[in-house]
Amino acid sequence: MKFTAHINIMPLKELLDPQGKAVSNSLHNLGLTNVTNVRIGKHICLSMEAKDAEEAEKMTTEACKKLLANQVMESFKFTLKEE
Amino acid sequence: MKFTAHINIMPLKELLDPQGKAVSNSLHNLGLTNVTNVRIGKHICLSMEAKDAEEAEKMTTEACKKLLANQVMESFKFTLKEE
Repeated sequence: MKFTAHINIMPLKELLDPQGKAVSNSLHNLGLTNVTNVRIGKHICLSMEAKDAEEAEKMTTEACKKLLANQVMESFKFTLKEE
Repeated sequence: MKFTAHINIMPLKELLDPQGKAVSNSLHNLGLTNVTNVRIGKHICLSMEAKDAEEAEKMTTEACKKLLANQVMESFKFTLKEE
């Protein structure tokens, strides 16, 4: 079975996000002054073959922990969809 | 009213995604050989003040078109949540 995991990796809330701050300032300069906060992370779509949703979930978690997310600075969340 | 827009900005399907390809190869090297495809984009959380959902949607679309997404190479999608 084919699954696609949609993963969001975001900087932890406790940490500053200088990229988000820069974008927030730029949006203000463009006239969007009602924007109060911006945080920027990664969105990853992972397509895989797995025998069931449980295996797909396990693989996705392993990929996030081993490679995709730096857990010192980032948290990850994902949703799985069968294709 | 406070709204948060959760925006996903992804490279267009027609385009190569070298970053995704590199991650895919790395996952194979880590033993996750069932991963068939990886695409990497940005996830942005935009908090804002708006009088209703319609205004928030308009602001988010403007932010994406003017600054956040390069529409030659990227597509964007978002969901809005009232806080």
